[in-house]
Amino acid sequence: MDTWSYSILGFDPARAALDGSRFLCANGYMGLRGAPEEAGRELYPAVTLAGVYDQYRDKWREPVNAPHALFARTSFNGKEYALGAEPHEAHRCGLDYRHGVYCRETDFGPVTVRSERFASLPLCHLLADRYQVTAHEDGEVVIRCGISTDIWDINGPHLFDFRLDEGEVLTARAVTGQKGILVAVSQYVQRDFDAEERQVQDETGVFRLLHCPVKKGQILTLDIFAAVYTSLDVLDPLERCAEVRHLTGYEALKTQHAAAWEGVWRRSEIQIEGDDEAARALHASQYHLNCVAPRHALSMSIPARGLSGQTYKGAIFWDSEIFFFPMFVHTQPGVARSLLRYRIETLPGALKKAAEYGYRGAFYAWESQEGGEEGCTNFNVVDVFTHRPVRTYFRDKQIHISADIVYALRQYYEITGDRTLLEEGGAEVILQCARFYLSRANAHLDTGDVDFADVIGPDEYHERVTNNAFTNRMIRHCVESALGLKQIFADDPGMMDGLMKKLDYEKDWALLSRMYGRIRAPQTRDSVIEQFDGYFRLEDCSLQTVRGRLCDPKEYWGGDHGVAGTTEIIKQADVIAMLALFPEDFSDADVRANWAYYEPRTEHGSSLSACMYALTACRIGRLEEAWQLFMKTASIDIVGGGKQWAGEIYIGGTHPASNGGAWMIAALGFAGLRMRSGVPEVHPRLPRQLKRLTFPVTAGEKRYVIDVRRTESGETEYSVTEMG
Amino acid sequence: MDTWSYSILGFDPARAALDGSRFLCANGYMGLRGAPEEAGRELYPAVTLAGVYDQYRDKWREPVNAPHALFARTSFNGKEYALGAEPHEAHRCGLDYRHGVYCRETDFGPVTVRSERFASLPLCHLLADRYQVTAHEDGEVVIRCGISTDIWDINGPHLFDFRLDEGEVLTARAVTGQKGILVAVSQYVQRDFDAEERQVQDETGVFRLLHCPVKKGQILTLDIFAAVYTSLDVLDPLERCAEVRHLTGYEALKTQHAAAWEGVWRRSEIQIEGDDEAARALHASQYHLNCVAPRHALSMSIPARGLSGQTYKGAIFWDSEIFFFPMFVHTQPGVARSLLRYRIETLPGALKKAAEYGYRGAFYAWESQEGGEEGCTNFNVVDVFTHRPVRTYFRDKQIHISADIVYALRQYYEITGDRTLLEEGGAEVILQCARFYLSRANAHLDTGDVDFADVIGPDEYHERVTNNAFTNRMIRHCVESALGLKQIFADDPGMMDGLMKKLDYEKDWALLSRMYGRIRAPQTRDSVIEQFDGYFRLEDCSLQTVRGRLCDPKEYWGGDHGVAGTTEIIKQADVIAMLALFPEDFSDADVRANWAYYEPRTEHGSSLSACMYALTACRIGRLEEAWQLFMKTASIDIVGGGKQWAGEIYIGGTHPASNGGAWMIAALGFAGLRMRSGVPEVHPRLPRQLKRLTFPVTAGEKRYVIDVRRTESGETEYSVTEMG
Repeated sequence: MDTWSYSILGFDPARAALDGSRFLCANGYMGLRGAPEEAGRELYPAVTLAGVYDQYRDKWREPVNAPHALFARTSFNGKEYALGAEPHEAHRCGLDYRHGVYCRETDFGPVTVRSERFASLPLCHLLADRYQVTAHEDGEVVIRCGISTDIWDINGPHLFDFRLDEGEVLTARAVTGQKGILVAVSQYVQRDFDAEERQVQDETGVFRLLHCPVKKGQILTLDIFAAVYTSLDVLDPLERCAEVRHLTGYEALKTQHAAAWEGVWRRSEIQIEGDDEAARALHASQYHLNCVAPRHALSMSIPARGLSGQTYKGAIFWDSEIFFFPMFVHTQPGVARSLLRYRIETLPGALKKAAEYGYRGAFYAWESQEGGEEGCTNFNVVDVFTHRPVRTYFRDKQIHISADIVYALRQYYEITGDRTLLEEGGAEVILQCARFYLSRANAHLDTGDVDFADVIGPDEYHERVTNNAFTNRMIRHCVESALGLKQIFADDPGMMDGLMKKLDYEKDWALLSRMYGRIRAPQTRDSVIEQFDGYFRLEDCSLQTVRGRLCDPKEYWGGDHGVAGTTEIIKQADVIAMLALFPEDFSDADVRANWAYYEPRTEHGSSLSACMYALTACRIGRLEEAWQLFMKTASIDIVGGGKQWAGEIYIGGTHPASNGGAWMIAALGFAGLRMRSGVPEVHPRLPRQLKRLTFPVTAGEKRYVIDVRRTESGETEYSVTEMG
Repeated sequence: MDTWSYSILGFDPARAALDGSRFLCANGYMGLRGAPEEAGRELYPAVTLAGVYDQYRDKWREPVNAPHALFARTSFNGKEYALGAEPHEAHRCGLDYRHGVYCRETDFGPVTVRSERFASLPLCHLLADRYQVTAHEDGEVVIRCGISTDIWDINGPHLFDFRLDEGEVLTARAVTGQKGILVAVSQYVQRDFDAEERQVQDETGVFRLLHCPVKKGQILTLDIFAAVYTSLDVLDPLERCAEVRHLTGYEALKTQHAAAWEGVWRRSEIQIEGDDEAARALHASQYHLNCVAPRHALSMSIPARGLSGQTYKGAIFWDSEIFFFPMFVHTQPGVARSLLRYRIETLPGALKKAAEYGYRGAFYAWESQEGGEEGCTNFNVVDVFTHRPVRTYFRDKQIHISADIVYALRQYYEITGDRTLLEEGGAEVILQCARFYLSRANAHLDTGDVDFADVIGPDEYHERVTNNAFTNRMIRHCVESALGLKQIFADDPGMMDGLMKKLDYEKDWALLSRMYGRIRAPQTRDSVIEQFDGYFRLEDCSLQTVRGRLCDPKEYWGGDHGVAGTTEIIKQADVIAMLALFPEDFSDADVRANWAYYEPRTEHGSSLSACMYALTACRIGRLEEAWQLFMKTASIDIVGGGKQWAGEIYIGGTHPASNGGAWMIAALGFAGLRMRSGVPEVHPRLPRQLKRLTFPVTAGEKRYVIDVRRTESGETEYSVTEMG
């Protein structure tokens, strides 16, 4: 079994949305969905741009899809062949995870169309496609290829004022409606056959028509190159696009691209032996996270659905810091740094949001877009019965987001030993986040205790709760991180003094010192931590009972109106997430009690859930369950899993949080990796399905290889090797 | 026009629930619904007992309906005549508000049934009915009369283990299911005709069968007396019931009853000249409030739907203190005292409720039943689409209830000058309520300001808001009242010292003194007070728009899921209620600005709304609007108005809050009555519809008559006369 690729036979238009995601090519700058070259909107093709957002009328803001410059459609003897529209004899498509190359082959009868393509990892503005047509009869092939401006959008259109230009290089440019960002794309071709070329344009784009008489058995090979630039990247997007004609040929570009991917895998690949399905799932998983990493940018983060489309508004969630960040900080700290720089640069947005709610400090956006702008609205769900928007509280009450960012900032410092990120704004972020919690705190006048009331924890089904254990613990960590800065900068007191002065922080520092010990600790019952005040008073019933109360399968489960909101059924790991993030606070017995209590009460209705349960399951030796959760998590972007709907809102796409979660389960769970003063330690918990687990870790300047294996006698042995 | 009675012609079973309420006879101890004597369950007959509650299984706790001992049904020549079941030629029924006497007359063709009945005001356990049958042909009349145990309940059954006894007096006794309270009723008759009497009993009750041959034109008069006692009243309910046979006859009892009502009117009647409709509406309104006053009990309050049935669980709401209390405290302070004593005696329930939520002090029940037990559940609405119960927050977040009680306690002291109620527990209630707010306060660590977060104000459509202006103002008043106690008892420092010691209050006193000035004042915009933090950021749309979004007419408007919850549309007076209760805090210009803003945004979906708008309208001279609101309020229990449904829950019945509101509008609004150091002052605002307004006021030992009239030249003149 080839654990490095995944392919499917046959074509089913009902699966088109899923296929577009699981056969995604991406390079951090853009994502090219896995639709066939000839696809019209109905098959959801898209080139989704990272960090370029637009709002159309009062619809949701979402990322912009560029015009599709790899469009190609073949006609033979006057008849057009397109998947979905015309019958075909056979179809196959697949993805090579090792090198990020998509390929497809479709036998339409008289002709076969074959392609392979990639979004170049080293040249992030480039898409390349080797498009081949084989004739099975004599006749005339016409390939219509060019730039399609007929773009699929969820909440579009976003591009206006198109200008299309013909020539050696086809170009299209347009501007976004809201901010007038210029988006330019170009297309250039090289071919190994003679053809009469005409160029045409209409409201659907600008195209070449390549007419070529063919003999039976003849293969036409067309190499298509597309470039994408926006005015956010460069001053002259259109000129840069034109440069596509100076590129070396397809093979050279592909070699360069493959080499870049080899480099990524050298830094990050987890090799496993013992289960090929699992090995492939992990490759898929790591591919999907690696391909959306912003390697081209010093300050950029990763949307919750990667670059697989416009789902979730292309926004940055806490997923970035808690679920994506661990793989990167342990393997590719440059990417981790970019993720955090994005937060440092968007601090002004967080200060603004806090002020909007009457607080001080930094309250980061729940769904952060460019500049830290809040993409989350007050209405995120549509009621299935009334079709009215439902007020949700993700935007205003999920206050743990600021502490999540601080958690990652501190992890970055502790794992890499690199203090510069703190110096270059990270420390200021930490202080402003702590200040936010100070001003958000609800102090009891009589006891001096501090509640955090009216919040939402990771389990979004329970809105507006008080003293969510996870949130309070994260806040405590945030305050501790703020107060710990003076220690980190003990050798450079001027740095902290300057910051304290700049932020007028003296009084807040004193208040934070006092608040730190007064934050309400969670209640427990037989070692089970109450998720929030009053959770144990909710109806205690089974997941099945709750599901049985649904009147419509698309109903939203959460909030007071949802079937779960008034019960102990939770959406995802919450207390368990706390146990996973703060392992040293809790004994194994604590973990055991809480796992046994919460797991059956968890719907796992989020890709953020399984990984936390699996990590804690490893710790307490529930390896069978950890394995099941790992397989579910790792294979999510192969089988296509997870919820497709929240109320009436489509939420499909890839699952970078699961991808990051799969890495965490394997590395932090099965191998039990912990960094201690910059040196990896392992505490293996190898499931019976695995024989061996090998992966690299980067810590500061040093690189290590972790190797965990089961001997023939059934013992687990391991090595940690520092690489030269 | 007779402004003292109301009657209707014809019978419509679809109107039976309404008629049962508007033709209610009650005396504070019990309410006898205005159904015909022969009514079966389908016409909603009931004898609802004040202060006797029961819960059946997991249904709502509600007041108990006693067996119906005035049941009577006539047969003539073998055929039974019953309204609703048999056709009739003519029907009329009515209520004499002056003396609380119901009468009906039904011409069934061969016989006419006529009755008049009352719930005795001086003898609160007694019901009496003069039942007359006129034969229009020769033949035989059989009257079946006795005790029906076939009881209508909303959430019953509540009575079990029935024991029925025949004899000179028929008796029935049973016990409630939850607490085993014994309920006994008896029936005794006197008749002016010879009859053969047999007695029968079956599962529907115990009855006399009176057989009597009649001649055409003969009238049979049967006087029926029923007694009701429970084991909460006396040790021997059944023996006391048997005493019904020693009573003097119907006429004497009626005379005594009428005299008692004359006494009530002497104390409370508002006479108006100029509009007979209004005069009658006011009589109806005052009747309905006076008839449910607990004159028989030293410590009892009035349910939100009076004694007209089991709606709203027969519970005591803030209606008692804010809407019922003003008429009583100004006219019949003994009743006002009983209402407040109920709160003093139920303090333990309020302490328990606060503790249940993790607070100290007294958090009174939102829907208080006996002993202050909370009758309000977490689910008060049923969703019309899913038929699932909806989590509402009335129970846990409507914290103004404790301050409402303090408001009335202080009013009682200020108007009556009577300090004994404070001495006998009232002061302790005030201190415990203030302590509750102290422990419920959310202090900002940095600014020291105090929020009250996560509350519901009077406008229940907006749940879980922060710094509701009304609530914060009421809390400030409560704290001020607590801190003012030392002044009131300046001549008796031992009293306060003892209390402070008993309650271990020193530290809280200091904290309250500090908190008092830090409670967040409301935001304003162009003098308009923001109802709560963020209200002005809600969607500002018309009532019509919001109503247009309903997908089902029975939908609940409130909460995040309701059509109003995310808009500025409110259920009832909220900011305006604050202006009405604290007139001296605000200028006329403030009232004008707020009235103009809030009135168009108010659904008036509660009987608690109109009166507050009318009171403030009087102040700013919007007399036409005040008059319309007055007429709507005063006539509600004649025309039957108000919402009948909240979600799928029936909420019909009489409207004591409107009744009390009508008194408030007339006395406090039109006459502008204010008590200053125990002496009435008037500031008349006579609407053009009125020529004269006259009413008595009691203040301590003194009684006054207020007389406001318009002279022929259009001037308003008035007099305040102290009566000897």
